[in-house]
Amino acid sequence: MAKLAVPPLLSLRHFLVLSIALNVSLILRTVYYESEKGSKGFCLNKKMMADADSDREGHLIHKSRLAMSSTSSLVNSTRADHPGGRETVINLDHGDPTIYERFWRQVGDKTTIIIPGWQSLSYFSDGSNICWFLETEFAREVVRLHKVVGNAVTEGRHIVVGTGSSQLILAALYALSSPDAAEPISVVSAAPYYSSYPSMADYQKSGLYKWAGDAENFDKEGPYIELVTSPNNPDGHRRKAMVNRSQGQFIHDLAYYWPQYTPISSPSDHDLTLFTVSKTTGHAGMRIGWAIVKDKEVAKKMTKFIEISTIGVSKDSQLRAAKVLKAVSDSCEQENSQDGESFFTHSYNIMAQRWKQLRAVVEAGDLFTLPQFSPAFCTFFGQETEPQPAFIWLKCEGDIEDCENLLREHKIVARSGRHFGASPKYVRISMLDTDETFIQLIDRLSAIQQGK
Amino acid sequence: MAKLAVPPLLSLRHFLVLSIALNVSLILRTVYYESEKGSKGFCLNKKMMADADSDREGHLIHKSRLAMSSTSSLVNSTRADHPGGRETVINLDHGDPTIYERFWRQVGDKTTIIIPGWQSLSYFSDGSNICWFLETEFAREVVRLHKVVGNAVTEGRHIVVGTGSSQLILAALYALSSPDAAEPISVVSAAPYYSSYPSMADYQKSGLYKWAGDAENFDKEGPYIELVTSPNNPDGHRRKAMVNRSQGQFIHDLAYYWPQYTPISSPSDHDLTLFTVSKTTGHAGMRIGWAIVKDKEVAKKMTKFIEISTIGVSKDSQLRAAKVLKAVSDSCEQENSQDGESFFTHSYNIMAQRWKQLRAVVEAGDLFTLPQFSPAFCTFFGQETEPQPAFIWLKCEGDIEDCENLLREHKIVARSGRHFGASPKYVRISMLDTDETFIQLIDRLSAIQQGK
Repeated sequence: MAKLAVPPLLSLRHFLVLSIALNVSLILRTVYYESEKGSKGFCLNKKMMADADSDREGHLIHKSRLAMSSTSSLVNSTRADHPGGRETVINLDHGDPTIYERFWRQVGDKTTIIIPGWQSLSYFSDGSNICWFLETEFAREVVRLHKVVGNAVTEGRHIVVGTGSSQLILAALYALSSPDAAEPISVVSAAPYYSSYPSMADYQKSGLYKWAGDAENFDKEGPYIELVTSPNNPDGHRRKAMVNRSQGQFIHDLAYYWPQYTPISSPSDHDLTLFTVSKTTGHAGMRIGWAIVKDKEVAKKMTKFIEISTIGVSKDSQLRAAKVLKAVSDSCEQENSQDGESFFTHSYNIMAQRWKQLRAVVEAGDLFTLPQFSPAFCTFFGQETEPQPAFIWLKCEGDIEDCENLLREHKIVARSGRHFGASPKYVRISMLDTDETFIQLIDRLSAIQQGK
Repeated sequence: MAKLAVPPLLSLRHFLVLSIALNVSLILRTVYYESEKGSKGFCLNKKMMADADSDREGHLIHKSRLAMSSTSSLVNSTRADHPGGRETVINLDHGDPTIYERFWRQVGDKTTIIIPGWQSLSYFSDGSNICWFLETEFAREVVRLHKVVGNAVTEGRHIVVGTGSSQLILAALYALSSPDAAEPISVVSAAPYYSSYPSMADYQKSGLYKWAGDAENFDKEGPYIELVTSPNNPDGHRRKAMVNRSQGQFIHDLAYYWPQYTPISSPSDHDLTLFTVSKTTGHAGMRIGWAIVKDKEVAKKMTKFIEISTIGVSKDSQLRAAKVLKAVSDSCEQENSQDGESFFTHSYNIMAQRWKQLRAVVEAGDLFTLPQFSPAFCTFFGQETEPQPAFIWLKCEGDIEDCENLLREHKIVARSGRHFGASPKYVRISMLDTDETFIQLIDRLSAIQQGK
């Protein structure tokens, strides 16, 4: 693609970035001339996606299903309105996963759920399960999806459903700590760590557990809990436990261990692993996460936590999540038939395109840098893939000490590195927003680099 | 009804109770001969309900819509299977509100919700609202229902949605306590109090708040939070704050302040009031509750609590709850047209019938006693109504010290009074289970009284 073949001259790079922005803008105007409303736009996109598919006829075999033609790359941008001016604030502070809306619109009725008024009256889902509020259908689809993707061992484990993975993190802290301990157990995570961990550990001023900061500097004797986020939020790197001492217990937060974000190397196999629908399929509004737990007593204590704090988890959302996860598994299993690309192929391609655009802009100047990743073999795609995190962990170079502040001056709201136990020279920016917002981001980062 | 005209002789009482049980059983068998499956059974009930309605033609004016004919009283029992033997355990430990399923089945498609796969991807519902995850439609229906029923002032208040009212109780404790206080604030409630309050206050070993027991014995100086449950769970009595000191803050848990449970005297008007869909309409599986909050800062802190613990509340369930609450308001407004009885008329009548049956059985012996209530004018029904709580607060008289144990011997699982800060001579038994289970309960209580 032209925009990726960046010549060494800085001025030419600038010109190219600008030119790309202009081209995208013009194409958007042309395409949207006839399809200003969402639904018509999606039909058009689907048609154009089909054209793009036929352009790369013969490439739809497993090994090369990730190859994007430049046509479909542009098509992927057509849902956004023209970026317009740089006056409106774009908020990329949260990882709101609206990027996936297009896919789910294209899927149509397959994931539509109908719930009659008399359904789900009872608190109980399955009284015979340790997690008595776990909907059987949801549990079944969780297990199936992990098998299809190959990213987690589920055999002989307990599934505990939560109101998002946030509730499960708290449930896990509760389950792994002891009410009889002389002092709260230390909770650590290696910096840069997920910015919510410190407040989640401390907001209740719990006597059970207490935030103890960066795992790398942790040298206290005795029991501790380490939160291992892999790929890591905010920086996207794969991680293993940092503190390896005898009295450690681990919560593996694998929210981003899905093929669109990182190569799947092998099924994860930890004592306590967390996933969430929000990052898997983009359905953040459902508030559904799940834990895969080896130890029965830990699963029981986590269930108890959720019982006391919310008496279970929305049945409606569990049923809806089951339907969505089923559609994802189906799309993977049917990919090589006439049913089009799978959810993960679709989302991998969008992420790949965004990361290429982002790197092109960032590398066109000296102001910003990005983390570097090595490609690796992905067992799901059966080929080498690139890590392409859900967040940009952007560093301001040179004498810019407050990167968040610089971006805010250009009406980009991002989260400062200081919230992640890192330097304010870093910011975290969501990569999962709409195409429109992403194009505005690219446009503004380019403008900042050019001192505009 | 014959069963209420209980003569003074004990032996005759026994005979009557047995006779009622036998009659109900025979009628059930007759009715269910042709309708063993649920769906057919519901059609039959609807037809018979219509007959019952036409029997009391002319009584469908506002003032007397609560008058039940004996015909419909029996009809109300027809959904249950024959009680059968007394060998199966009936679990009435929880207040699982399956009693309402029949109404929602009769309502049909009106409350069916259809959610397409691309909906509710974002975390956000209304960024301009303090409670940014509150669905506008849900908030609108909450306000409308309180206006229709007249049980709460909502003007100028903030609505905060929660994953059931449990999460809102915790959010309220968090919001009303101070992280800078020298010691945790005391949390009290008058015994018998809701059995979950102590564990909810203490399970996190929070440094912010701490369970301090029965409000009546509370004599500590300084700030405190009193949980005021009215009508009270477990005993059904109307309540006001017990401790009236200057540094008190109050959480009014009005889960049962609805016309089917208690006469509505006036709109509640407190600083912080909680309601839940579970007890209002019976949709416990949704896990949706709401708080009505006067103070903006308190609403903000409660929102923050829910943000940290679950990053919002299921959108799917909020949308579904909106639809169900709308159907309830509609049913109230359309009651005098041809659309049949309102949700509250329906549920009041079932509760009235159950309480009559229960009192008949209990009063037929000396072993048990029930709380006594006085009727009062209900502004919603426009007539005097009886309190008819969602739980039985049953006392074992004489030398029976452990009422829970006695019931357990007869395969009735109920919750001992000791969990409510009361004597084990008491038990709490749910009144909201299915007709089938309720008839079994009546049958067994009768058998116990007769020493069988």
